[in-house]
Amino acid sequence: MISQLREVFALHGYGEIETRVVEPIARLSGDSDASKEIYTLGRLTAGGDSDAKLGLHFDLTVPFARYVEERQGQLQFPFKRFQIQKVWRGERPQEGRFREFYQADIDVVGRDTLPEHLEAEVAIVMARALAALPIPAVRMHVNNRALVEGFYEGVGVTDVAGALRSVDKLDKIGADGVRAELTSKGVSERAADAVLELAKITAPDASFAVAVEDLWETTVLVDDAELVEASQLKLARGIASLSALVTAVNDATANADGTTHPGVAVADLRIARGLDYYTGSVFETFLTGHEDLGSICSGGRYDSLVAGGGFPGVGMSIGVSRLVSRILGGGLASASRAVPSAVLVAVTDEEARAASAGIADRLRARGIACEVSPNAAKFGKQIQYADRRGIPFVWFPGAVGDDASAATGDGEVKDIRSGEQTPADADVWAPSAEDLKPRIVPG
Amino acid sequence: MISQLREVFALHGYGEIETRVVEPIARLSGDSDASKEIYTLGRLTAGGDSDAKLGLHFDLTVPFARYVEERQGQLQFPFKRFQIQKVWRGERPQEGRFREFYQADIDVVGRDTLPEHLEAEVAIVMARALAALPIPAVRMHVNNRALVEGFYEGVGVTDVAGALRSVDKLDKIGADGVRAELTSKGVSERAADAVLELAKITAPDASFAVAVEDLWETTVLVDDAELVEASQLKLARGIASLSALVTAVNDATANADGTTHPGVAVADLRIARGLDYYTGSVFETFLTGHEDLGSICSGGRYDSLVAGGGFPGVGMSIGVSRLVSRILGGGLASASRAVPSAVLVAVTDEEARAASAGIADRLRARGIACEVSPNAAKFGKQIQYADRRGIPFVWFPGAVGDDASAATGDGEVKDIRSGEQTPADADVWAPSAEDLKPRIVPG
Repeated sequence: MISQLREVFALHGYGEIETRVVEPIARLSGDSDASKEIYTLGRLTAGGDSDAKLGLHFDLTVPFARYVEERQGQLQFPFKRFQIQKVWRGERPQEGRFREFYQADIDVVGRDTLPEHLEAEVAIVMARALAALPIPAVRMHVNNRALVEGFYEGVGVTDVAGALRSVDKLDKIGADGVRAELTSKGVSERAADAVLELAKITAPDASFAVAVEDLWETTVLVDDAELVEASQLKLARGIASLSALVTAVNDATANADGTTHPGVAVADLRIARGLDYYTGSVFETFLTGHEDLGSICSGGRYDSLVAGGGFPGVGMSIGVSRLVSRILGGGLASASRAVPSAVLVAVTDEEARAASAGIADRLRARGIACEVSPNAAKFGKQIQYADRRGIPFVWFPGAVGDDASAATGDGEVKDIRSGEQTPADADVWAPSAEDLKPRIVPG
Repeated sequence: MISQLREVFALHGYGEIETRVVEPIARLSGDSDASKEIYTLGRLTAGGDSDAKLGLHFDLTVPFARYVEERQGQLQFPFKRFQIQKVWRGERPQEGRFREFYQADIDVVGRDTLPEHLEAEVAIVMARALAALPIPAVRMHVNNRALVEGFYEGVGVTDVAGALRSVDKLDKIGADGVRAELTSKGVSERAADAVLELAKITAPDASFAVAVEDLWETTVLVDDAELVEASQLKLARGIASLSALVTAVNDATANADGTTHPGVAVADLRIARGLDYYTGSVFETFLTGHEDLGSICSGGRYDSLVAGGGFPGVGMSIGVSRLVSRILGGGLASASRAVPSAVLVAVTDEEARAASAGIADRLRARGIACEVSPNAAKFGKQIQYADRRGIPFVWFPGAVGDDASAATGDGEVKDIRSGEQTPADADVWAPSAEDLKPRIVPG
């Protein structure tokens, strides 16, 4: 799965980087919410104590920010990178939640400016990467921070970030719970209702815009004309951005006829993403039929990757381990075999081992993975060796039985699934493309 | 480089596994020498303290042993695996020594028995993996524990393991230093001389055997006939094993005519490897012209991977980071470009971005990595964008200039190194194999 992701990311011009796993705690613990999950390093000789100066990274954004900050003089912007590494979090393990797990991130980061169309690009690359995996179809739910902020300000919400954090809990605590939280934070009943109404709007295309504009017309609550105008401008900017993004992503991900698969993007105005960090598009992605897993690929547009500002970007992150856990645990896919070998070259007797090794090397020279039998047992035993490992072919060197056609040349190759056995030349014969390498197969 | 290693290992039937980075300290700290380098884990919320139950693995052998122990019921033996992961050691960093670094290991592990020819197989696979890397030729120095033990016992050394640890320091403390250490451990002067004479024997083929036998004839020192016979048997077994291995490895790694490259294996009777763990072949590998780097790939045959016994195996490990550090630091090789893209598809104006994206997608469908210009700047600027990233081709969609031949179709593609520009079809055109992907280039 990681190779598949690598391939799609690279085809779109994203370069792979890898950063060290160990970072200074001071850099890791900036976000107070994350800091409680950080693993620190100590030394056994010091009795496990430490001055807690180093820790394991808990995501790939913090180390990427350091990477960009340190290399800003050498990097070419906009800089497109992908990064697939393990991260560590000291949370309570549960189904689909691990303490050591893989994330796969892509980001595009600009210097001072970043064109908005790159938000759609990142979403398209991620949609295609997910489509390359052995998983059900995904739906990418998108919202826009400018849109939400403009609307919230227009209905009189002053603490927009606080309101967003409450709306982010819709799934957990329901509309009534969110309303209660909002009003406890000083949001008026009418404004809370408006915020909840906005969160109901969703559409698989740009038609969401009409619903937002209608709601805006009926619910603007502040009577400060200047604030209304500013809010409306922000709202309009957000609507335009979200419309363009949903259209671009669906154009790029729909089937050719657009009917069987309308594209993966859905404008969904309840998507909040708790972090203040985001300033434009925000994304959450759900697996059809496995929505209980939560978002498998999230992210958004931010004003600066680096604390000092000046590095706007957009990024998304796949929770690879959680996805793999569901795929394997749910029996959605498995590997066609456990070993790379397509062929086991049998050994007639130990004196002839070199001949078998020679055949194996000629197959390898043409990219066919194979191994030589570790012993010269009866052929039935050697076939069993292949069968137990899922190796589909066994090669018998030299003459086999009394068949005159096999008396010369490299011998015969047997497909141990069908039992079919034919004379073959080690410089010519090849397995089918399906059998060449282990594959991911459904179910 | 890691992809190259993966490819060679898989072609030889070795399957990739990955184990968790964090292991229980109790499992990691078995070897008292390693335990002082172990990093332990703690939690920030606990003030960096911890009960030191978990730590980071410091090699790939300890976690592989756990893997085999836990899965012995499911695995098929002999089990061939490779594993390329980072490991952590709290040593003092210096040139070529890191605290977080990559190792690449292969091992074959049997259940109860393991044919001796697999020792040669592992050495051959490693020699081929190293030959696939952008590094100078290597010499693989091989010794055999049975040979050394038989000889040492025959000259009256009782603490063979202690003597081996002293001989292992030959490079550091010289022959006089080793002699002093040996005699201080109770080895007689004459026995110490014999041990040092044995360490001088080296040959690029099986001819070492004569020298060993000659030395044996003149220096057997014990006068216990039974012990002499047992020692001689062990010695003979070791000589036979080492001869077979050196011959097999050189046959498999020599050039076709055997003259320009005689094969990578050298019988070298000074190779000691400090660990008691090894019982048969032991390997150390040196980079021609960079012997100061020390061994870049070491390993050997062992009686059991698992503490309880019953899992004999043979394995070797490449110090990948140390090698990469020398390659880059020494200017031995570099990447042909920093980004995966072979092509930058230019954008004529923002309204035509979709047309450029369409061309890019048709190239990607044929495996050609490309990106679309982030802006519709003057073509000169877009060429500069490609040039700064090392992208060799820029694609200009639609008609370019007044050239009638370019007025229809997909436009023109320019090789920005030669300046050559030709009309091209996005379903047909392809870069040369050399330009398709970033490559490792010498110098």
